[in-house]
Amino acid sequence: MSITKAPLLLLGMSLWLSSPTFAAEAGANETGPVKAPSRPKNIVIMIGDGMGPSYTSAYRYYKDNRDTEEVEQTVFDRLLVGMASTYPASISGYVTDSAAAATALATGVKSYNGAISVDTQKQPLPTILEKAKTLGMSTGVAVTSQINHATPAAFLSHNESRKNYDALALSYLETNADVFLGGGQKYFSPELLAQFTAKGYQHITRFEELASINQPKVIGLFAEVQLPWAIDEKDAKKLSTLTQKALNLLSQNEQGFVLLVEGSLIDWAGHNNDIAAAMGEMDEFANAIEVVEQFVRQNSDTLMVITADHNTGGLSIGADGNYNWNPEILRNISASADTLAQAAIASDTWQADLSRGLGFELTEEETTKLTAARTQGAEPLAIEIRHVIDKRTDTGWTTGGHTGMDVQVFAAGPASELFNGHQDNTDIANKIFSLLPKPKKPKAPAQVSTTAPAPVQPQG
Amino acid sequence: MSITKAPLLLLGMSLWLSSPTFAAEAGANETGPVKAPSRPKNIVIMIGDGMGPSYTSAYRYYKDNRDTEEVEQTVFDRLLVGMASTYPASISGYVTDSAAAATALATGVKSYNGAISVDTQKQPLPTILEKAKTLGMSTGVAVTSQINHATPAAFLSHNESRKNYDALALSYLETNADVFLGGGQKYFSPELLAQFTAKGYQHITRFEELASINQPKVIGLFAEVQLPWAIDEKDAKKLSTLTQKALNLLSQNEQGFVLLVEGSLIDWAGHNNDIAAAMGEMDEFANAIEVVEQFVRQNSDTLMVITADHNTGGLSIGADGNYNWNPEILRNISASADTLAQAAIASDTWQADLSRGLGFELTEEETTKLTAARTQGAEPLAIEIRHVIDKRTDTGWTTGGHTGMDVQVFAAGPASELFNGHQDNTDIANKIFSLLPKPKKPKAPAQVSTTAPAPVQPQG
Repeated sequence: MSITKAPLLLLGMSLWLSSPTFAAEAGANETGPVKAPSRPKNIVIMIGDGMGPSYTSAYRYYKDNRDTEEVEQTVFDRLLVGMASTYPASISGYVTDSAAAATALATGVKSYNGAISVDTQKQPLPTILEKAKTLGMSTGVAVTSQINHATPAAFLSHNESRKNYDALALSYLETNADVFLGGGQKYFSPELLAQFTAKGYQHITRFEELASINQPKVIGLFAEVQLPWAIDEKDAKKLSTLTQKALNLLSQNEQGFVLLVEGSLIDWAGHNNDIAAAMGEMDEFANAIEVVEQFVRQNSDTLMVITADHNTGGLSIGADGNYNWNPEILRNISASADTLAQAAIASDTWQADLSRGLGFELTEEETTKLTAARTQGAEPLAIEIRHVIDKRTDTGWTTGGHTGMDVQVFAAGPASELFNGHQDNTDIANKIFSLLPKPKKPKAPAQVSTTAPAPVQPQG
Repeated sequence: MSITKAPLLLLGMSLWLSSPTFAAEAGANETGPVKAPSRPKNIVIMIGDGMGPSYTSAYRYYKDNRDTEEVEQTVFDRLLVGMASTYPASISGYVTDSAAAATALATGVKSYNGAISVDTQKQPLPTILEKAKTLGMSTGVAVTSQINHATPAAFLSHNESRKNYDALALSYLETNADVFLGGGQKYFSPELLAQFTAKGYQHITRFEELASINQPKVIGLFAEVQLPWAIDEKDAKKLSTLTQKALNLLSQNEQGFVLLVEGSLIDWAGHNNDIAAAMGEMDEFANAIEVVEQFVRQNSDTLMVITADHNTGGLSIGADGNYNWNPEILRNISASADTLAQAAIASDTWQADLSRGLGFELTEEETTKLTAARTQGAEPLAIEIRHVIDKRTDTGWTTGGHTGMDVQVFAAGPASELFNGHQDNTDIANKIFSLLPKPKKPKAPAQVSTTAPAPVQPQG
């Protein structure tokens, strides 16, 4: 194979367009020139919020079994196919927020930071989940943030600002989505929930109630805002449970489904520069990916595409000149720095408690710094706890915000090879759009309508 | 396509092993189970020392034409195919140095930090360049560091420590390599160079002499130690020139060649946390890649594989909570911080000089800090200059050393698809080993020998 003057991506597309399967599948497509060699029936989009490449590398070493000479591969290693650039519309520079990134991933169009699937002129942009609905597919979201946080919101709704949480919650009534699973009770008043119920949604708030839900539609809100840190509820695997339930419910539709799963709190741990919480959230997300991977193994008509919306925190494996990283320490930490700090503020035996929670004896220097921070309150103490952990593990951070490094793309299932190599985050959405089924042609001229086909809802 | 229980990499290999072209090419291979569908005649291995994913992302924005709405793709975007883990042998933890990483990339075996192609028992490991030599291929290195620095050394030689520069230089006499181009005059005494000349090497020290070299062998040492910063010699494109010359010389061998090209100083700029110098070195390396890309276009029997040995500096695009990065500033900076500081120390009009060199007016706060740093000498002043640039550009760093994040893999040419997806750095070497030609079978039983085939040297 020799390379041509065309970028390799275009070369790949051109080879693919000329493939034998293409002719059978070709057809008009309003979202771009991309055509699928073999269209999936179902698509699961998974987003690790803030999960830049340093997170997946760190997770590999965090999970490494030191009793073996080899470093074991992770689910991310198994599924890696490419990378994606994340920059927003030029008006917002080169570093995206979660709203602009989710807009790109949900609509294939770049917008300004803060935008929820509206363009730079604040006009609504069609999303993958909306398009799927018009084609008779089922749709859903399963996330660890509030369900009206930026990422799920951009797949479901439109707003000039991600901050308009109440308007976004209200707008969900009109989405016709089949499954909402996550946090966010505070944004859904009893009156609003009554409207969801009137539309046929089951409404639950306790995790235990999930088992009783056997059919869509459902709105499950399991926390006031976001779900608890995974590290604070070890082995709860809540995102895995939500993901499995969403798959069970959505796969009842013979016309297929599109599901968005987000490991939302990887980003929140990154903003906090809390490496122990970040690895807990990575494990939570990796477990959910394995649930979907298993579904894809059993359902060869399902495509899974995983990416991050951006990188958070400027996390580095090794810091301050040390060629080292000590993830073993992280495995023994029993709670997030927030939780450890709150407990320490409330306890007379805080030093012993904190030492137990961290899994190591505190040095005199560490104790001195933590004691000083504790006099200033829970938040300064949490910051100092994170510094202690960073120093012991040689973990580095450059920011409490986001950074502009490219993120990885992972995929498996039909047409997963489309996501190989470099691409922009908008390309990911446009490839997925291209894989959605074509609208059904009317059976007779008399039935031609100028409006979009009516969505076909699954029963229940 | 459905996924199986096997890792996708293995699935890919298994599909490839069963491809129609495999049967014709299959044969015994001592370095691993990998077989080539279509073996390249020539292989160019290119290493961006320290070039983690944040460097290639940053380079895209550094090169972006802000007069267009789109962000232009770079050569890295065109060629991306996968990523690689970089951890060294377990005795050295999870963060590699350049020696262990180069050993992995040159031999397919992990070793300890500091090792130059010896294993953890300090026993020599066969390298790709050595193997190529035994097969009658030509070999060479073109680098911007001294030619006996860790990366080229691990492809050419063996030593228990990268620090044994003189021993490494001496050992090059025995390598039979055809092209040595880079820096390092101080390690090659007149007596040693006389031995190279006696072996048929042409020896040059001035860049202008390169044009007169039309045949291997050559040892070109163009600097006392490393070559000058690219940013200090704008548009010199020295690595491109060295690379083009190496291609011209090595391609004279009908039996093919293996060339190592290293953008060595990306890492040195990263260690200095000098973002302007780093972008200059990225441009230098990108230009050299384009030279090789052009060669691959014209020679469809040539494979190019590009990676980094590790990530340096914990570079981040955006820092300190700012969702921003300002590469425009970098394009106007006319020299490295080292060079600007040395000039400022020697000048009575240093503030005006420095402002001119940086391409922006210094604020009162910046001037105060720089003035204080200047009283302490050139090195503290260089550090403060970098801080000023970091602050203005929103560039972050976590270390003056290396970090453990995975690096990217780029490839084009025959069998380039072997490098798709996730792999370990040792896998890269083992794949390349598998692509080398099989040793020629003797023509008659009488000619069977127990020693390796004698290398066939190109004339001249």
